[in-house]
Amino acid sequence: MAAEQDPEGRAAARPLLTDLYQATMALGYWRAGRARDAAEFELFFRRCPFGGAFALAAGLRDCVRFLRAFRLRDADVQFLASVLPPDTDPAFFEHLRSLDCSEVTVRALPEGSLAFPGVPLLQVSGPLLVVQLLETPLLCLVSYASLVATNAARLRLIAGPEKRLLEMGLRRAQGPDGGLTASTYSYLGGFDSSSNVLAGQLRGVPVAGTLAHSFVTSFSGSEVPPDPMLAPAAGEGPGVDLAAKAQVWLEHVCAHLGLGVQEPHPGERAAFVAYALAFPQAFQGLLDSYSVRRSGLPNFLAVALALGELGYRAVGVRLDSGDLLQQAQEIRKVFRAAAAQFQVPWLESVPIAVSNNIDEEALARLAQELVAVGGQPRMKLTEDPEKQTLPGSKAAFRLRGSDGSLLMDVLQLAEEPAPQAGQELRVWPPGAQEPCTVRPAQVEPLLRLCLQQGQLCEPLPSLAESRALVQLSLSQLSPEHRRLQSPAQYQVVLSERLQALVNSLHARASP
Amino acid sequence: MAAEQDPEGRAAARPLLTDLYQATMALGYWRAGRARDAAEFELFFRRCPFGGAFALAAGLRDCVRFLRAFRLRDADVQFLASVLPPDTDPAFFEHLRSLDCSEVTVRALPEGSLAFPGVPLLQVSGPLLVVQLLETPLLCLVSYASLVATNAARLRLIAGPEKRLLEMGLRRAQGPDGGLTASTYSYLGGFDSSSNVLAGQLRGVPVAGTLAHSFVTSFSGSEVPPDPMLAPAAGEGPGVDLAAKAQVWLEHVCAHLGLGVQEPHPGERAAFVAYALAFPQAFQGLLDSYSVRRSGLPNFLAVALALGELGYRAVGVRLDSGDLLQQAQEIRKVFRAAAAQFQVPWLESVPIAVSNNIDEEALARLAQELVAVGGQPRMKLTEDPEKQTLPGSKAAFRLRGSDGSLLMDVLQLAEEPAPQAGQELRVWPPGAQEPCTVRPAQVEPLLRLCLQQGQLCEPLPSLAESRALVQLSLSQLSPEHRRLQSPAQYQVVLSERLQALVNSLHARASP
Repeated sequence: MAAEQDPEGRAAARPLLTDLYQATMALGYWRAGRARDAAEFELFFRRCPFGGAFALAAGLRDCVRFLRAFRLRDADVQFLASVLPPDTDPAFFEHLRSLDCSEVTVRALPEGSLAFPGVPLLQVSGPLLVVQLLETPLLCLVSYASLVATNAARLRLIAGPEKRLLEMGLRRAQGPDGGLTASTYSYLGGFDSSSNVLAGQLRGVPVAGTLAHSFVTSFSGSEVPPDPMLAPAAGEGPGVDLAAKAQVWLEHVCAHLGLGVQEPHPGERAAFVAYALAFPQAFQGLLDSYSVRRSGLPNFLAVALALGELGYRAVGVRLDSGDLLQQAQEIRKVFRAAAAQFQVPWLESVPIAVSNNIDEEALARLAQELVAVGGQPRMKLTEDPEKQTLPGSKAAFRLRGSDGSLLMDVLQLAEEPAPQAGQELRVWPPGAQEPCTVRPAQVEPLLRLCLQQGQLCEPLPSLAESRALVQLSLSQLSPEHRRLQSPAQYQVVLSERLQALVNSLHARASP
Repeated sequence: MAAEQDPEGRAAARPLLTDLYQATMALGYWRAGRARDAAEFELFFRRCPFGGAFALAAGLRDCVRFLRAFRLRDADVQFLASVLPPDTDPAFFEHLRSLDCSEVTVRALPEGSLAFPGVPLLQVSGPLLVVQLLETPLLCLVSYASLVATNAARLRLIAGPEKRLLEMGLRRAQGPDGGLTASTYSYLGGFDSSSNVLAGQLRGVPVAGTLAHSFVTSFSGSEVPPDPMLAPAAGEGPGVDLAAKAQVWLEHVCAHLGLGVQEPHPGERAAFVAYALAFPQAFQGLLDSYSVRRSGLPNFLAVALALGELGYRAVGVRLDSGDLLQQAQEIRKVFRAAAAQFQVPWLESVPIAVSNNIDEEALARLAQELVAVGGQPRMKLTEDPEKQTLPGSKAAFRLRGSDGSLLMDVLQLAEEPAPQAGQELRVWPPGAQEPCTVRPAQVEPLLRLCLQQGQLCEPLPSLAESRALVQLSLSQLSPEHRRLQSPAQYQVVLSERLQALVNSLHARASP
């Protein structure tokens, strides 16, 4: 499979992928003599997306890639000079040319772990001017990735662990890289595969796909394949003319289904035969180019039974329009009856895949019945990472019960001692008038040192490893927090000292 | 300003940016001996987005760039080989290696012109196998660009021609290129500028931006700038300590506003002074880091009046939270009163900019009052370009009245003679039982030959030229079609021959 390296990602995320005000503020800091002041910012969100009580942390690998490559080239500095005041001190541009992330330190939630409102996904510290320039690109890289991963995880929860979920949103994506990002992080969040070949090539995402309506409708039935012969699966014995064999089976199938043998579209059948000749081990029928019942289904059965005679098993059918559930149920019945009629038991359980605008509601309805669905994530960005941040540099801990289940996350000042397992801790739930007490069985520090002074502290996990962490993390979340509709809110509490600091700042701000 | 060349765009839109089923179908066509069959596909949409009656055609420049660079490299072919059956004929991969767009012809709606449901934005013809591989990337490049441009045009219609609209959606965009695409096509659709520096560098989009809350809150007031002196705008006379001058003005301002001189936050004022020292010609105050009325506004006035003494005029203020309209109205009153009090008439009309989740409704409310708004396009993709296409290769014409106003678009078969200006024409509105008659004063062919056998037929217009076409096109659309809420549907009609063909196919499909 492909390496997970991505030279394009690095190319797309160039240093000027930032808001101009980051550059104007950089000049402001420079003029004020503050360019090298120590600074830190945190990325977090205030509300979980999609009405849920959890989100997933994702995008860290792209952030690390961006940070390690961060450097303003001459052309970048020249462009900035062209949009900043003409009398700007040339020393400012010299300073820009010297920038890199060798003094930047990043702490982050591990890729694929659960994230809750107010807990930083990313803490970035370094010289003020540099971290200001980094803010927009890091936001851009983290927020969309986390959103897509969260969406995918929700769909996976609905579908259950066994159903196969295929992401196929590329054609509707926000441009080429929008598509690449969506495919990558849908996989991380729990999808099995993507239709996006580039995501396979660049990111190692498993790719899947068979055929579209255009393939089916491009055949009239009068085409003559240069080589209609197919050898048996076992490799022994003479080849067979698959089209002729399918034609024979069509008569049996139509008699069984009570259809005239002229009813199934000959072009659709020719398309199925053509596809089966190219993919005898992986024949899938797309059933709804014409009538499913009168054409797609009998044509599929004819070709699948012809293949079956040669020892090949069709891998499935796909529906892409209409009432997917009702049709799928009818098709399953037909498969069962035909399996009995023609004494081919494998036909009973041929997978039925569905696609076409499958959102959470539709998936919930379908999940009981089907083995595969194709989804296109629907996005709704609700993070609001900018306003009203908690003061000071913070640490975050996840408190767990003795069975590993999640109790709450605690935010505290970086300099406070970490909570201790088995010891009582007084914390402030948001908006509470009184602190409450908790005694965690396990304490997990949430923000891991990822980049220290520009150096990677440990190898990043692979995409597949992060994907596994997602499912593990979700399994440790209690059902009331994992629920997709009207979940109980997971508590993120403040330490007593952080709460006291917040109170004192509030008091100062509102005299 | 920057060149409109974009090496990154070409890098991002690589040949494998496609759905796997395009590759599996390619193998199917190859095995069926149809790889070089002549083929054509059209991209169109079925419903206008955002509940409107129009959309804009956009993304053509990216399509042309993609097509001209289209070529499968060895690594691409090797990746495809790794996901296709191991016994695939090696000659298929040789064929893939030989592919380019030298036999591909593209007709398209001009970039920035009006597009209506059913009228192709793009017609792509060439060898079947190649055009199949092109379908997904072209869809990806056209649909998002058109959506963003349409959204921007709607916001421009609401704002009117004079208001300045700044796009600043990068931090919430779908990854780096999603942001680049959004910024580019928001500009094309009618925005004035973008915060996205990379869109300026790579696409020549005007960029704009000043400062964020983080800049303001990073100052405590105790900072000592290395050089607090500012020379007068005219360049004559001694420099002045701007911070000290602002402090003097603060006392006047607070007395005028009935505030204690300790109330305005000293850090906010220090930030404003720092920004003004860096940008004396372009000082903008972000007013809502603390209290707008008690801090942001008096601090802004103090610094703006100090700058004014030196001959500099503040360029504006920005609000980013709360009830934007109400606050803007109050601020305008304060500006007027202060202008009179301090005898500085320019203060009366200092622009007030607003940002923060501005959708169409909010913009409509704001547009009467303000001069600048920052928008983040909200996306809803409603195109459905795949299913139930009209048969055959088509031509499209736009019929106009004698004043240039749009009457309707006509779809007909490619081989039919074009409608003639001044001559009566019988056409079929969608779903009509009878044809109707129209006599256009002008007839405009809609699909222009863009790429012929891989060669660009004429230079593409610049982004700014396409942007101008958008506004010209919208001005020719009648108010009932241009209306954003519950507009009248613009008619796209069929020629008699096309309607007859559709009827005969329907009759065949439903025996």
